[in-house]
Amino acid sequence: MLHLVIADAELETIPEQMQADPSIRRFAKKRNKRVDRMILDSNYMHTSIDRYFPNESKRRGRPDIIYLLLEMTQESILNHKNQLRTYVHTRNNQVIRISPITRMPKSYNRFIGLFEDLFEKRVITNNGKELLSMEESSLEDLINSIRRDRTILLHPKGEMKKPSEFISNSNTLIVIGGFSEGDFISDTSFIMERYAIFDQELTIWSVANEMVANYERAIGLT
Amino acid sequence: MLHLVIADAELETIPEQMQADPSIRRFAKKRNKRVDRMILDSNYMHTSIDRYFPNESKRRGRPDIIYLLLEMTQESILNHKNQLRTYVHTRNNQVIRISPITRMPKSYNRFIGLFEDLFEKRVITNNGKELLSMEESSLEDLINSIRRDRTILLHPKGEMKKPSEFISNSNTLIVIGGFSEGDFISDTSFIMERYAIFDQELTIWSVANEMVANYERAIGLT
Repeated sequence: MLHLVIADAELETIPEQMQADPSIRRFAKKRNKRVDRMILDSNYMHTSIDRYFPNESKRRGRPDIIYLLLEMTQESILNHKNQLRTYVHTRNNQVIRISPITRMPKSYNRFIGLFEDLFEKRVITNNGKELLSMEESSLEDLINSIRRDRTILLHPKGEMKKPSEFISNSNTLIVIGGFSEGDFISDTSFIMERYAIFDQELTIWSVANEMVANYERAIGLT
Repeated sequence: MLHLVIADAELETIPEQMQADPSIRRFAKKRNKRVDRMILDSNYMHTSIDRYFPNESKRRGRPDIIYLLLEMTQESILNHKNQLRTYVHTRNNQVIRISPITRMPKSYNRFIGLFEDLFEKRVITNNGKELLSMEESSLEDLINSIRRDRTILLHPKGEMKKPSEFISNSNTLIVIGGFSEGDFISDTSFIMERYAIFDQELTIWSVANEMVANYERAIGLT
């Protein structure tokens, strides 16, 4: 089994400080949503994010990269073969568990709607089966709750190695940063195996693809 | 080099038969676009597609899967290393060449806007560099215009093989169907090497990921 843990993902509902912002309130009215139930999305709220979080505006509110990541992981051969588990840990220490049977809506707007539902209800089911669930947990507690033989952190400052050189067919947990800029917020000092797979910046879904494809190969699927 | 050719992609502007449809016209007005310059998108126009193309309504108007595919291919290590060329051939025998330097907009709406621009202007440049270009061409003519040592068609009825068993480090062209349902419209009978990589249906971006990751491995990148 491969456990993919996305750490410190920039996925959150509108922070309290921003809820009175006129442009955010207009946006909520247009969408017929309560302000505090909308997901922060820099694609549409960049100016407001800049106003309230000037030093973090480049990284906050990036549900789009989580959407792209989950379109990849859930549709992979590894997931079809029930050998992949994906967890999204957020900047606010919330953890979303994605069931292997879950397929993401192909439309981004519907993906946002689904995750807004999840933030409100904490669980999404279909015919009695849990598709998505959300709980409070630190990154370290999440990792310690998962049975695995190896724990690997992908980090630009890790040892430069090709994925084929460090991915084996053991029960492996791999941590990938869920943000497009900057560093981890959570403590990751307890993870000893640290690698960088490429000398340029990669998107998180490209990194996840590399992990998934190389793990499939390591266990003989591809 | 790996050449990925997406064949018979369900990517087109609003077909003539649909341009007088009231709901399509309302949609165009809301977007402040000319009807004939909008991209057909079943996420928003499903009912109308059903009315005008009842037998094809399940496959037509799928720019969303091309968007997801290009987010994968353009951000891959193989593309960063300038070893990937991606071509999108459409159901109407139009061919879009995507430059390796092109990165897709992360927002789906902006992606649609970019491709609407492309359909109108036939070329998208940035600082004098061509990012996207469009021409009229059949699938066979496109393939014959590309220098390659091997031509492979991925097809559910091809020989079942793992990607690692058929991908080598030669100059390879791989054809993937650019639709979510049904069969190729274009003639593909001239392609002799045909493989299926999995016994269940996969999305086109999952198939592309497998090709890219296995080619990276074959040439020693990962």
